[in-house]
Amino acid sequence: MRAYKELSESELLTLKEELSAQYEEAKAKGLKLDMSRGKPSLSQLDMERDFLDMIHSDSDVKTEGGVDCRNYGLLDGIPEVRKLMGDMLGVSEDQIIVFGNSSLNIMYDTIARAMIFGVIDSTPWCRLDKVKFLCPVPGYDRHFAITEQFGIEMINIPMTEDGPDMDLVEKYVSEDPAVKGIWCVPKYSNPQGYTYSDETVRRFAALKPAAEDFRIFWDNAYAIHDLYEDEGDELLEILSECEKAGNPNLVYEFGSTSKVTFPGSGISALASSKENLDSIRKTMTIQTIGPDKLNQLRHVRYFKNIDGMKAHMMKHAKIMRPKFEAIIQVLEKELGGTGIGSWTNPKGGYFISFESMAGCAKEIVKKCSEAGVVLTGAGATYPYKADPNDSNIRLAPTFPSEEEIAQATDLFVLCVKLASVEKLLQNKQELKG
Amino acid sequence: MRAYKELSESELLTLKEELSAQYEEAKAKGLKLDMSRGKPSLSQLDMERDFLDMIHSDSDVKTEGGVDCRNYGLLDGIPEVRKLMGDMLGVSEDQIIVFGNSSLNIMYDTIARAMIFGVIDSTPWCRLDKVKFLCPVPGYDRHFAITEQFGIEMINIPMTEDGPDMDLVEKYVSEDPAVKGIWCVPKYSNPQGYTYSDETVRRFAALKPAAEDFRIFWDNAYAIHDLYEDEGDELLEILSECEKAGNPNLVYEFGSTSKVTFPGSGISALASSKENLDSIRKTMTIQTIGPDKLNQLRHVRYFKNIDGMKAHMMKHAKIMRPKFEAIIQVLEKELGGTGIGSWTNPKGGYFISFESMAGCAKEIVKKCSEAGVVLTGAGATYPYKADPNDSNIRLAPTFPSEEEIAQATDLFVLCVKLASVEKLLQNKQELKG
Repeated sequence: MRAYKELSESELLTLKEELSAQYEEAKAKGLKLDMSRGKPSLSQLDMERDFLDMIHSDSDVKTEGGVDCRNYGLLDGIPEVRKLMGDMLGVSEDQIIVFGNSSLNIMYDTIARAMIFGVIDSTPWCRLDKVKFLCPVPGYDRHFAITEQFGIEMINIPMTEDGPDMDLVEKYVSEDPAVKGIWCVPKYSNPQGYTYSDETVRRFAALKPAAEDFRIFWDNAYAIHDLYEDEGDELLEILSECEKAGNPNLVYEFGSTSKVTFPGSGISALASSKENLDSIRKTMTIQTIGPDKLNQLRHVRYFKNIDGMKAHMMKHAKIMRPKFEAIIQVLEKELGGTGIGSWTNPKGGYFISFESMAGCAKEIVKKCSEAGVVLTGAGATYPYKADPNDSNIRLAPTFPSEEEIAQATDLFVLCVKLASVEKLLQNKQELKG
Repeated sequence: MRAYKELSESELLTLKEELSAQYEEAKAKGLKLDMSRGKPSLSQLDMERDFLDMIHSDSDVKTEGGVDCRNYGLLDGIPEVRKLMGDMLGVSEDQIIVFGNSSLNIMYDTIARAMIFGVIDSTPWCRLDKVKFLCPVPGYDRHFAITEQFGIEMINIPMTEDGPDMDLVEKYVSEDPAVKGIWCVPKYSNPQGYTYSDETVRRFAALKPAAEDFRIFWDNAYAIHDLYEDEGDELLEILSECEKAGNPNLVYEFGSTSKVTFPGSGISALASSKENLDSIRKTMTIQTIGPDKLNQLRHVRYFKNIDGMKAHMMKHAKIMRPKFEAIIQVLEKELGGTGIGSWTNPKGGYFISFESMAGCAKEIVKKCSEAGVVLTGAGATYPYKADPNDSNIRLAPTFPSEEEIAQATDLFVLCVKLASVEKLLQNKQELKG
């Protein structure tokens, strides 16, 4: 396959004609596919059916300690689910609070709490002239949406295969007291699927923030979401690294079972130091009487322990893996050597990240959409939806079936080619003009 | 029974001796009873067992509209549960959003949202020098805890059998733009069990607030929680009254099934005008991807419709009613004519409110506690836990068994008598001194 950049104008024009014809044909198929969000597929959901039988009318609904899960109580979650979620995140049960169905909601509330009450005893962020967050990019759109809604200024930090550019992170965090946080998806990052290296984690743990109320928002969303057995990435456990570094309060870690059991009907957790958790409990105990303990118990009965949970995740992997592989194969076959795109090939998580030529991402997503394949909006992986290169596209392989994935990816590479050719022709025109 | 006030000092001293002896005997029994919180009893919970079978592995888990409840989506809740909860509160399904397991959490978040973002387009409350809330007293301690945590100044409004003193409410609301809200439990109020009269509701709907961002926080916690069939109180539906009065945005109404199915595993709802709900959706969609739809579906399948829900509530009533009646009987028999206490006799809700002689409530609660019966803390029914008369005590009859209720109430009246005699003796001493 020749690199597109080396094609002459007339070669590009011929190629454009061919691709346009193919695109019109593809459009005529009337596809209706969605590769936009990290949603489990029907096969994954069907596999979880037994989960719904775990608590029934004849069940013992008491915790091991004898608390009736059908009544009020246990603000922190039932002890056995704290153990389970702690094991999932690699922390002990006294370092964790288990909440309701959404870790996003915990993250939102954690920032809302800092805005109104401050962090432990700091000045409430709403009283400050300026609050800034570091945002490794590309990243998770829903993180950026939270900080944007609270009027927090977001600063892009480039991602590398080892995690965020730590030189830059250290510089901002140590020099600017307005920098109060950083969003991280440390394992199988969204969208690239990169896992932070041990060195990156240790540099995070050793940060010396200018602001005492600086916190790392460690969204460990894919802690056990490997695609391959015995080949998964390993993430260093950050809370113990922070302790070792004398920074015990530096991290809020989040996790959930949204992609372990059911999205919307899972459970979520916050792990942190005792001092951080105690401070959070002071407001939590006013905000709610407690979480849905029956659903927590359902999780404990379903998985029994972390080994059960991990074995279970391999069933998900079996369903998801062929979809990831199918996309990668098509990308390699159709775009390898063209120089018009690069992509990640993660060993876990929910996404593949695609980099087009600069200035093409919006056009590719638009073309896909017009032919019936919905992708995550171009720009969504950047704060303020502003991708400075207009090049990043997040592919979410999990929800469609394998057949649909094949159709969607064929269309995607076609749109990449067409948009790239158009761009190259446009560049040539501009050079002439 | 003679009024205690008419007793001479020597009669009081004799009585004190008798009562003290009885109290020591009672203490020796080593009771361990809890009448402090509005918790359903084991019989009520056991009655709900079938609820846990409503969604199982063979269930159709789609909404009527075909949405799979096991995956992300439907921020507002599933349509059929919006209909059900709407019927519970007497509003239409487009006037309601159904949330997770806790209406307290919705109330907290509603105030947090107003603090950070304002109400619709108003100035965020956190930017104001002073925010005030009106608090009908006695009232619900968890309401007061929320406003206290947010640093909102609370103003006591006396309750009457028809609801809050509306002359006072109208005066504050129309004259002081710092008054941004009022806490209301309009049906079977906590703790008195009073239901607001039609006139009270109409006067609420017709308020002309000095502050455009004033809202009524209408916690309709006991909307269908009658103790007697065909004898329940009727509450005028406030949203339609507000519309009629040209004040469509005046009310946030809250409700839940915490005392219909399971506390902690129920569902909660917010009813309001389209403009209010649209404004809330703007932040909700950033805060969460959606509620636990499987639990919503479980509710719909269990009750089928509002008639099923109401019929079901009569089963709760059958369990609860004898407990309320047992307390009332003992109070009448032991304290009738003594002039040392008065109490409410509600037709629904979860509480009985007791008024002791001024200055006795704390002592009564303390004496009960020392003899093994936990009551709601004296003062808890007032903002800042400050009952100016030290006279209100909330009795929560639902959690203990009937036998336990009898024991606890016997002890309670004994403590009322003893504390009152001690108070009367002390008053006589002070007069002498």
